[in-house]
Amino acid sequence: MNFEYTDKVKQLRSQLADFMDEVVYPNETVYENQLREASDRWTVPPVMEEMKQKAKQAGLWNLFLPDSELGAGLSNLEYAPLCEMMGRSMIAPEVFNCAAPDTGNMEVLERYGTESQKERWLTPLLDGEIRSCFSMTEPDVASSDATNMETTIERDGDEYVINGRKWWSSGAGDPRCRFAIVMGRSNRDAPKHMQHSMIIVPLDTPGVKVLRMLPVFGYDHAPHGHAEIDFTDVRVPAENMILGEGRGFEIAQGRLGPGRIHHCMRLIGVAERALETMCSRVTNRVAFHKPLSDQGVIREWIANSRIEIDQARLLTLNAAYMMDTAGNKVAKKEIAMIKVVAPNVALNVLDRAIQSLGAAGVSEDFPLAAHWANSRTLRLADGPDEVHRNAIAKQELKAYTKVPVKQSH
Amino acid sequence: MNFEYTDKVKQLRSQLADFMDEVVYPNETVYENQLREASDRWTVPPVMEEMKQKAKQAGLWNLFLPDSELGAGLSNLEYAPLCEMMGRSMIAPEVFNCAAPDTGNMEVLERYGTESQKERWLTPLLDGEIRSCFSMTEPDVASSDATNMETTIERDGDEYVINGRKWWSSGAGDPRCRFAIVMGRSNRDAPKHMQHSMIIVPLDTPGVKVLRMLPVFGYDHAPHGHAEIDFTDVRVPAENMILGEGRGFEIAQGRLGPGRIHHCMRLIGVAERALETMCSRVTNRVAFHKPLSDQGVIREWIANSRIEIDQARLLTLNAAYMMDTAGNKVAKKEIAMIKVVAPNVALNVLDRAIQSLGAAGVSEDFPLAAHWANSRTLRLADGPDEVHRNAIAKQELKAYTKVPVKQSH
Amino acid sequence: MNFEYTDKVKQLRSQLADFMDEVVYPNETVYENQLREASDRWTVPPVMEEMKQKAKQAGLWNLFLPDSELGAGLSNLEYAPLCEMMGRSMIAPEVFNCAAPDTGNMEVLERYGTESQKERWLTPLLDGEIRSCFSMTEPDVASSDATNMETTIERDGDEYVINGRKWWSSGAGDPRCRFAIVMGRSNRDAPKHMQHSMIIVPLDTPGVKVLRMLPVFGYDHAPHGHAEIDFTDVRVPAENMILGEGRGFEIAQGRLGPGRIHHCMRLIGVAERALETMCSRVTNRVAFHKPLSDQGVIREWIANSRIEIDQARLLTLNAAYMMDTAGNKVAKKEIAMIKVVAPNVALNVLDRAIQSLGAAGVSEDFPLAAHWANSRTLRLADGPDEVHRNAIAKQELKAYTKVPVKQSH
Amino acid sequence: MNFEYTDKVKQLRSQLADFMDEVVYPNETVYENQLREASDRWTVPPVMEEMKQKAKQAGLWNLFLPDSELGAGLSNLEYAPLCEMMGRSMIAPEVFNCAAPDTGNMEVLERYGTESQKERWLTPLLDGEIRSCFSMTEPDVASSDATNMETTIERDGDEYVINGRKWWSSGAGDPRCRFAIVMGRSNRDAPKHMQHSMIIVPLDTPGVKVLRMLPVFGYDHAPHGHAEIDFTDVRVPAENMILGEGRGFEIAQGRLGPGRIHHCMRLIGVAERALETMCSRVTNRVAFHKPLSDQGVIREWIANSRIEIDQARLLTLNAAYMMDTAGNKVAKKEIAMIKVVAPNVALNVLDRAIQSLGAAGVSEDFPLAAHWANSRTLRLADGPDEVHRNAIAKQELKAYTKVPVKQSH
Repeated sequence: MNFEYTDKVKQLRSQLADFMDEVVYPNETVYENQLREASDRWTVPPVMEEMKQKAKQAGLWNLFLPDSELGAGLSNLEYAPLCEMMGRSMIAPEVFNCAAPDTGNMEVLERYGTESQKERWLTPLLDGEIRSCFSMTEPDVASSDATNMETTIERDGDEYVINGRKWWSSGAGDPRCRFAIVMGRSNRDAPKHMQHSMIIVPLDTPGVKVLRMLPVFGYDHAPHGHAEIDFTDVRVPAENMILGEGRGFEIAQGRLGPGRIHHCMRLIGVAERALETMCSRVTNRVAFHKPLSDQGVIREWIANSRIEIDQARLLTLNAAYMMDTAGNKVAKKEIAMIKVVAPNVALNVLDRAIQSLGAAGVSEDFPLAAHWANSRTLRLADGPDEVHRNAIAKQELKAYTKVPVKQSH
Repeated sequence: MNFEYTDKVKQLRSQLADFMDEVVYPNETVYENQLREASDRWTVPPVMEEMKQKAKQAGLWNLFLPDSELGAGLSNLEYAPLCEMMGRSMIAPEVFNCAAPDTGNMEVLERYGTESQKERWLTPLLDGEIRSCFSMTEPDVASSDATNMETTIERDGDEYVINGRKWWSSGAGDPRCRFAIVMGRSNRDAPKHMQHSMIIVPLDTPGVKVLRMLPVFGYDHAPHGHAEIDFTDVRVPAENMILGEGRGFEIAQGRLGPGRIHHCMRLIGVAERALETMCSRVTNRVAFHKPLSDQGVIREWIANSRIEIDQARLLTLNAAYMMDTAGNKVAKKEIAMIKVVAPNVALNVLDRAIQSLGAAGVSEDFPLAAHWANSRTLRLADGPDEVHRNAIAKQELKAYTKVPVKQSH
Repeated sequence: MNFEYTDKVKQLRSQLADFMDEVVYPNETVYENQLREASDRWTVPPVMEEMKQKAKQAGLWNLFLPDSELGAGLSNLEYAPLCEMMGRSMIAPEVFNCAAPDTGNMEVLERYGTESQKERWLTPLLDGEIRSCFSMTEPDVASSDATNMETTIERDGDEYVINGRKWWSSGAGDPRCRFAIVMGRSNRDAPKHMQHSMIIVPLDTPGVKVLRMLPVFGYDHAPHGHAEIDFTDVRVPAENMILGEGRGFEIAQGRLGPGRIHHCMRLIGVAERALETMCSRVTNRVAFHKPLSDQGVIREWIANSRIEIDQARLLTLNAAYMMDTAGNKVAKKEIAMIKVVAPNVALNVLDRAIQSLGAAGVSEDFPLAAHWANSRTLRLADGPDEVHRNAIAKQELKAYTKVPVKQSH
Repeated sequence: MNFEYTDKVKQLRSQLADFMDEVVYPNETVYENQLREASDRWTVPPVMEEMKQKAKQAGLWNLFLPDSELGAGLSNLEYAPLCEMMGRSMIAPEVFNCAAPDTGNMEVLERYGTESQKERWLTPLLDGEIRSCFSMTEPDVASSDATNMETTIERDGDEYVINGRKWWSSGAGDPRCRFAIVMGRSNRDAPKHMQHSMIIVPLDTPGVKVLRMLPVFGYDHAPHGHAEIDFTDVRVPAENMILGEGRGFEIAQGRLGPGRIHHCMRLIGVAERALETMCSRVTNRVAFHKPLSDQGVIREWIANSRIEIDQARLLTLNAAYMMDTAGNKVAKKEIAMIKVVAPNVALNVLDRAIQSLGAAGVSEDFPLAAHWANSRTLRLADGPDEVHRNAIAKQELKAYTKVPVKQSH
C-alpha cells in the first residue's frame, strides 16, 4: 500500500483548493439565491454554467474518469483527494463535471457503449452540455435485492418496449437532463443474474412520464431532483441496448464500484467541512463563562470526529488502491467496507456539529442539515448498509469450512 | 408509583383513539394537499378548523391544562397517554388545542397572568381562536446558557421598550398568531437569575419585524413556521409585563417543566407510530426470498425499539407522577432525564424505520422523515442534551461531599 | 401499573438495609480473607454460616418464594426492591437463602415436586442446610437452542439411567451441594418440546464425576464454582423424575421466568452500587487542578448511568407486576426485555465506574471487576441477548399479517 | 504514506508466522500447565526459556528496537506487522524478547543511559537474561495527571533516597526481574514538567518491599504480575539517575510513544485472532437448524469486526509512518488516536467473539476472556482514553483562534 501523492496530484490539489476558495465557496449563496428567486425551482442557476466554464478553462474537468484518454487519466487513488475536496460543497461536483449520476453513466458508456452511443450521449456529457439519470430503483419492491426488479424491456422488431415504474431517478428534474439509463428485466427465463438489461431511454420518448419529484427530508434538491417516472409502452431503437441483452448485472457491477467509492470520497470531504464548522463555532461561542471548546464533552466529539474521519479516509484510500492494483472485482470487500463506513462517519460528524451549533445547525445558515439529509440517503443508495455488511461477512467467512448440518427434523 | 389509568383516562383514551382513526389520520393528506395547493404556504388549511370544531364538540379540548377549571383538570400522569396519542400525528396536537408553544403560553398566563391579561390573551387561546409564540432564543449567543440573553426590556414611563433579535419563535408564521411572550433582560444589575423578564408583545406592534422563516432540515413547517424576529424600539403597555420585572427565570422554570414533558409524551407517540410503520412494512416486503421481518438484523431493530420505547414511556410516567405528587421543582431530575431520553429514543426508532423502508423512508410517503427532523430539534430546544445531562449529574453528585482541592501547585 | 411499596415491603426494606450495613458489607473482606487463608478454596468461609444464622433469626429468609406458605409470601413486585438490595453484594443472596441456582430449584420442587421429593430435597434447601445445582448447558452444542441438548435420561426398570456431559453447573463446587437437577432427552420420538425431562441426581451417585471447575474471566467463584460434570451410566430411582417424563421444557418455562427476573433485580443493585462507587471516587480524586467530578465527560457518564438504571428498574418492576397480575406466560415479552436490558446496563455502569477509577477499577480493591465478570455471564446465561431479542421481535410482529411469499425459485 | 512491506519485512513475517505455528501456539497450553503444576505461580515455566532459545537462534530477537545496531534495525512501520503477529498470543512477545515493560526500559537505557548503565542493565535485558519493571503509577493519586506523582527522589551525598508507594509495577512478580525504573519528584521547586526524575532501583535494595500482586479481573498474570511496591528510605548510587535530575517527563515522552504503539500493534493481533476464533466457531455451531454463521446478527458482528480491525490497522500504520518520518513529537496526535482506537476495537471484537461462543467464551478454553481482561487495562494504562481524546481535540483546535471571553457577568 503506497498512498503517497504523486506530483501530478499535488499540483491538481493545489489548483483545486484555490478554485474552491475563489470560485465555489463564494458562489454557494449566489446559487441558492438564484434558485430561490427563479420563477421555477427546476431551472439551472446561471452561476453554475459560469463556474463550469471557469473549471473547464482551468483544466479541472472530468477528473473522475480513470485510465482513459477522455478524462484526466487519474487512478482511483489519485482521484480520491480531489473528489474529497469537491465533496465539501454540494454544488462543487457539477462544477467540475464530476457529479453523480452522470459520472457513473459516462463510465458505463465509455466502457460498454458502442461508438454511436458514445458519439450521441457520451460526448455531450463529457462536454457538460447535457445531463442524464439512472433508473434502477422501483417503488413496489424491496430494491435491496436487485433481482426483485419488475420493469420489463422487451424486444419488438427493431425496438425495445419498456414498461414499469421507477423512482429515485436522481437528476431527472434538471432541464438539461436528456436521457435515462434504464435497467429492467428482458430475459425472464435466463439464470437469475442474466435476466436484466440496461438501455438508453431519451426522456422525450413518448410514454415517459415524470410523475413527481421526491423530497429528501424536506429538501427538493432542485434543480437536480429525484423523480418518480412512469414508463408505459416506451419504444426505443434496439441500438440503445447497452452491451447486450441480459448483461445488466454485469454492467451494474462495473458501474457501482467506482460510483460507490466516489460517494465515499465526497463524504470524507463533507465530514471534514463539518468538523471545521464545529471547531470554528465552538471556539467562538461562550456559555457558562467559557468557550464551548473548553467543554470536555465537546472535546470528545472533536476527538472522535478526527479519529473517525482519518480512519475512513485511510480505508477509502486503501479501497482505491486495491481497485487500481487488483481490480474492482477483487476489491469488492474493500468497496463494501467503505460503503458502510463513509456515510455513517459523515452522519456522526454532522450530527455532532449540529448539536454543537444549537438551533443554527438544523437551519439553512450552515451546510450541516442539508449535508446530513444527503448523507443519510447514502446509507440506502447503492444498497443499504445491511446488505453490504452481509456481503463483507460472506467474504470473511469464505476461509472457514462449514460442517454439514443434519437436516433431521 | 401508581401508574394505573383512572376510569376517566380510560374513557378519554378510547374517545381519543376513535377520533384519531376517524378524523385525524384520514385528514393528514388532506391537510398536506390543501397546504400545497394554497397560493401561499402561510395560510391555514381549512380542514384544520373543521377538525378543531369536531374535537371541541367531542370534549377533546384543552386536555393539557393540569389542575385547572379551565382545562380538563387532568394530572400530568393522566394527560400522558392522551398526549402520547396526539404525538402520533404532526397535525393532531393543534386539533385538540394542545399544541406547543400555545400550551406553554396558556399555562404561563393561567398561572401568572393578571385578570386582564387572561381575558385579553388567555381566553381566545383557550377557545382556539388565536395562536401565540414564545421568543426566547437569540441568534448571536449560545442559548444553552440562558443568562447569555441580550434582548433588553426597559421601562419608560407607562411602557416597556423592547430591543433585540430573537429566532426560533415557532408558530409566528401562522396568520392567527397574535402575540409573542418575549423574554429579555430588564434589570442588568440584579442577581444573575433576577435580571430577566417576560412580557406580552402583540405581533402587530410597530417595530416588530419578522425577518424570515427558518427551515428545519428542508422543512418550512408551514403555516406554523420558525421565525427570526427583529424587535426595534418596540413599545408595549407596562401592564403587559408578566408576574413582575426580573421574574423571567422564575416563570421559565414553571413553564419549562410541563412543556418539556409534553414534548416527551408526544415523542413516545412518534416512536410508537414509527415502530408500527416499520413492522407493517417489513412484514410485507420480500428480499432474498423471505420477508424482511425474517431477517435477524431487522428483528434486533424491532426488539431494541420496543425496549427503548417501553423504557422511555415508564420514565415519562414516572416523571409525570413525580410532578403531580412532589411538584415540578422536586421533579427536576426526573424531567431532565426524560428530556434527554425521549428525543433520542424517537430518533433511534425513526432512523431504524427509515432504514428498513429504504428510500421511501426519507420521502414524504411516510411520516418518518418529517418526524425525524422535528424530533431532532428537540435534542436542542429547551436546552441541549448536554446541559440536561450535566444537571442530572449535578443532582446525583449532591450526596457526595467533595474534599477541598489544594490550589497550591 | 401500581408500583407503590406496600407497608410490608417498606418494613422489610428498612430491616434489610440495616442488615446489609451492619452485617453484610463489613464481612465482605472477612469472607474473602477466610477463603484466601483456607487450605482449599472449595470450603465455605465460616462467616457465611454465621451471617445466615443472623438473617434467619431476623426473619430475612427465603424472601424470594412467591405466593407460598414456605417463603415470605411476597409477590414478584414486592420482592424486587429487596432482591435489588441483595444484589449489591456478591455474598448477600446466600446470606438470605436467596441465591441462584437454589432459588430456582426450590421453586421447581415447590411447584412440581412430589411430597417425598419436597421432604428429602426442598426442606433442607429452605433451611439452608444443603445447596444444589442445575445441569442444563452442554459443552458440545450451541445451548442457545435448548433442543440441541444431547444428554440422555432413559428408563430402565425402576430407575433412570443418565448419560451425558454438562458444564456451567454453577454451585457444584460447594461442599454443601448435594444434588443436581439434570435436564436431558428422555423421549426422542415425541414432539420437539416434549422430548426432555428433568430429574434429581444426588451428586454422590456413582458415575457422576466433576471434571473441572470453569473460571469466569479469571475468577474461580469459589467455593460456589462452575462445574463441568460427566454423567456416565448414572442410575437414580424413577421417583426422582420431576413432574413426569417429557415435561422438562414445561418446567423450564416455569423455572426460568422468576429466575431471570431475580438476576435482573440483583443487577440493578450491582449497577447502583457501581454508580455510588464512581460518584464517591470522582468527587475525591483531583487531576488537572479539579476533582474528576467537575469533568464534563465524567458527568455524562454519571447522568447516563442514572438514566439507564432508573429505566432498567422501572422495566423490571413492570415485568414483575405483569408476572404477578397476568402470569409468567403472558409476561414473557416483558421478562425477555429486562433479561436483555439489565445485564447490559449493569455492564455499562460498571465499565464507566472502572474507567473513572483508573487501574484500581480492574483490581480487587473495589467490587467492580468481579461484578463485571459476573454480570457479563448474564448476557449468556438463561439465553443470550440475541435469542431474547428475537423472541421480543416475534411477539411484536404477531400483530402484523404476513403476505404469502411466492416461492417461485 | 507508503505502507508497502519491504522485502526484509516480508521475509521476517514469513519466518515469524512459521515460528508462531510451530513453536508458540502449540506451547500455549504447555505453558499454562507448567504454571498450574508449579508449587508456586511466581516461577517461570521452563518452556518459556526453551522457546526463547529457539527464537534467538532463528534471529527473531529484539525486533522492536528501532534505528539501532543493538536490535533488528527496523523502523516502526516495519516492526508493526511483526509486532501484530506477536500480539496474537499472550506468551509470544516474551519469546521474542519484545515484551513490555522491558522493551520500553531497553529503549530508555539505549537512548538515555550512560555506558555503565547500559553495560550493567541493558546488555542482560537485550540478552533475555533478566527482566525489569517500570514504577510510575501511584495508588493515592489520580495518575491520569502525571504531575500528581508523590514519590520523592532526594539527593543525599553520593546517593539518592527514594520514598513512596507505587503500584501496577508490571513484571515485578517474575523471579528474573532485577530492577525497576522508578519515577518520582526530585525538584519540587522547578517548573511543573521539570520536577520529576527517573532512576534505576535494583529490586534487592533494602527498603524495597513488594506488598502484594494485583489481580486484573481475577487473573494474576503470573509469573509476570502487577506489584504494589513500597519504597522506604531506599538508597541507590547517584549514578543510577537516568539522563539527569528533573528530566523524568522528557524521558517519559520518549518512552511512551513507541510503548503505546507497540501495545496497539499487539492489540490488532489480539483482535484478528478473536475474529478468527469467532468465524471458526460460528461456522461449526448449529442452532435453530442452521449454522450460527447464517444468522444475520452474527454476520453484522463479523462485518463490523473486519471493518474496525482494518481501520485500526491502517491508523496504526499511519502513526508508525509518521513517527518514522516526522518524529515521535510531531506524531503525537497520531499516537494518541491509535492509543484510543486499538484497545476499544480489540475489546469490541473480543466481546462479540465471547458472545458468539456462549459460555465457552468467558472460560479458559479460548484465549478470549484473558485477552479481554488484558486489553481492558490498556484503556487505562499509559493514560486513559479521555486524556488522549482531550489531547487530540487540543491539537485539532489549535488552528482556530479563540476570541477573548469577557469575564464580566
